[in-house]
Amino acid sequence: MRAAGGSAQAVTGDGANESDAARFVAATEEQGLLELVLHNAGSNRRDAFLELDAGDFEMLWREHCLGGFLTGREARGAWCRGAGAQSFSPVQPAHYAEVRALRLLPPPEKAGLRATAQSMARELGPKGIHVAHIVIDCGIEGGRLLSAFPGRQNQKGPEGLLPIEAIADTYWQLHEQQRSAWTHEMDLRPWSERF
Amino acid sequence: MRAAGGSAQAVTGDGANESDAARFVAATEEQGLLELVLHNAGSNRRDAFLELDAGDFEMLWREHCLGGFLTGREARGAWCRGAGAQSFSPVQPAHYAEVRALRLLPPPEKAGLRATAQSMARELGPKGIHVAHIVIDCGIEGGRLLSAFPGRQNQKGPEGLLPIEAIADTYWQLHEQQRSAWTHEMDLRPWSERF
Amino acid sequence: MRAAGGSAQAVTGDGANESDAARFVAATEEQGLLELVLHNAGSNRRDAFLELDAGDFEMLWREHCLGGFLTGREARGAWCRGAGAQSFSPVQPAHYAEVRALRLLPPPEKAGLRATAQSMARELGPKGIHVAHIVIDCGIEGGRLLSAFPGRQNQKGPEGLLPIEAIADTYWQLHEQQRSAWTHEMDLRPWSERF
Amino acid sequence: MRAAGGSAQAVTGDGANESDAARFVAATEEQGLLELVLHNAGSNRRDAFLELDAGDFEMLWREHCLGGFLTGREARGAWCRGAGAQSFSPVQPAHYAEVRALRLLPPPEKAGLRATAQSMARELGPKGIHVAHIVIDCGIEGGRLLSAFPGRQNQKGPEGLLPIEAIADTYWQLHEQQRSAWTHEMDLRPWSERF
Repeated sequence: MRAAGGSAQAVTGDGANESDAARFVAATEEQGLLELVLHNAGSNRRDAFLELDAGDFEMLWREHCLGGFLTGREARGAWCRGAGAQSFSPVQPAHYAEVRALRLLPPPEKAGLRATAQSMARELGPKGIHVAHIVIDCGIEGGRLLSAFPGRQNQKGPEGLLPIEAIADTYWQLHEQQRSAWTHEMDLRPWSERF
Repeated sequence: MRAAGGSAQAVTGDGANESDAARFVAATEEQGLLELVLHNAGSNRRDAFLELDAGDFEMLWREHCLGGFLTGREARGAWCRGAGAQSFSPVQPAHYAEVRALRLLPPPEKAGLRATAQSMARELGPKGIHVAHIVIDCGIEGGRLLSAFPGRQNQKGPEGLLPIEAIADTYWQLHEQQRSAWTHEMDLRPWSERF
Repeated sequence: MRAAGGSAQAVTGDGANESDAARFVAATEEQGLLELVLHNAGSNRRDAFLELDAGDFEMLWREHCLGGFLTGREARGAWCRGAGAQSFSPVQPAHYAEVRALRLLPPPEKAGLRATAQSMARELGPKGIHVAHIVIDCGIEGGRLLSAFPGRQNQKGPEGLLPIEAIADTYWQLHEQQRSAWTHEMDLRPWSERF
Repeated sequence: MRAAGGSAQAVTGDGANESDAARFVAATEEQGLLELVLHNAGSNRRDAFLELDAGDFEMLWREHCLGGFLTGREARGAWCRGAGAQSFSPVQPAHYAEVRALRLLPPPEKAGLRATAQSMARELGPKGIHVAHIVIDCGIEGGRLLSAFPGRQNQKGPEGLLPIEAIADTYWQLHEQQRSAWTHEMDLRPWSERF
């Protein structure tokens, strides 16, 4: 962003921590009007249900669902547009990992985030705040996946992973929507991804 | 389109008629490569279920669901992207008309079209054909609604109807998506519309 | 039924034909009070979308969706409980036939029937008429399947097909529900069936 | 249960506490074979989203979603059938409370529980363990509601609240289902309840 002539500032903390979430908003408002809030959590587990650790189950809920709720709630009072990103299939039982169609069934923490986003949209839309939820139903062509699973890109074939720029472009398109034509939910996946 | 320097040609017929659907595709291929197919049906009835005419029930299915199927199927063999538009709440029982949340429940012909579009997307996506389904969950600011319900615009308030241009822009954004980042389904409605 | 000491009478016709649907109701009312109406259609096609015949697409809609609508509508005025049965995955693209999870996506004619049943339930429930929709997501252990696919029972393993008696018992349980505790939708499948 | 000639024993604890959940299962296995596990959580909040307390948001998740997960997971290894009950509309924004149709949108903790139950069913079904999820979409005619909202029964009219016995009967019917005919999800509500 700086290379493109803009300015950027990082504030670190845990979006699932109430005071950190408030601090993120306060830091932004020192710089000017808060216009866009994104919550994009990405951890997942592919363990079988019977082996899933209670601590992991809670961690995933904190990161995805509680983090999305607090990030959105703390931005209240600011003229904001909040978008929650849904990344792919954590905590699906491992033996279903090959059955891509099961991604239709979001894991508990994403199902909870989606319900949170719908409640937010119904309450905040008529107040002029746009709440959107993006379902990312595939692998993302970014450092995390590529370093953890070096063979994935070959396995998926050409244009088989979702580029980070495409996610950013989609957020921007939603942000640019005039208020007479808002989208609440949309999905993103490559052409070759089964669902 | 002609005013903007492009050329346009209208071919009329009934998309729910197998030979007309084939004729639409043939007429296009005479002009060059078929790149985009849109199916946008809009009729609706708001009668109570007990009063709904069987002929109307069938007409709605023909226009929305069969028309979407045939338009998409006839474009096979062409390198095409097909998008089906879902307009708002036909054949919902009249006494639920005030309960906007019921729009969550599409009428039978739209539920059938949505299932058709999902089947098409699963089969055609891996062949490189993008199939998208847009849920339009509101009134459209166009001649049909404005002449049939002159008071609707005032009743809905500022930016309370969906502009036709916003629908066109959305189709175009989907058409421009690179194949590593396709959307299958998204919704559109004004900020003030309850859902 | 006669062997069990009851009496039964068959009236044949096409539930998707308006006058036949009315005739079914009239024939029943000659015998007494109409208490329960079942609509249980079962045809399916497993063709790929690109190969699906328009006539088959229409036939499936007539049998499942229009037939469910007319059977329910013609029973209006009678104190009835109507239940629509949803049988398994017709017209799913053939190459997805092995991916059972796709059954989550009902074919167009069943999606349309489900939306019809929900509209009926919302309108007729407060009038004291119970409308239920049963999703049958598996093979049925009956003459039709067993003669068409003789090896299916072995392939599915022990108790891997749904017994006809279990379907009948379920309809009866729904019919016996007191009006303070009605079910609108439920699914049925064997333990070993993936979904 | 004792009055009916059976024997019953209460073990108290918190199902969202890992060691308590394990203790519940151990106490049962001292008595014999564990045949049925029920998880039925009922707390709710009707606050507007902007006013919802983070501690309440977490408490609801612990009670409904984490409790359902742990209760089910700790029963692993036992021949069990687990059923999760979904009670009505907590944490919906207060100003939507009148719009009953919004119950279609479960609150985050119930959406998470439903996704948990679906994952459990897919993993445990083929192991012979029946997992069911019951959506209770109405007020329950029990001490908690009747003492907190004394006027509710009159307001709802005759048979307008769900009797506790009907819930128990439904659990029992699911428990009695043979393994060739299992239900994973069903809903319960009175005839006059809008949805």
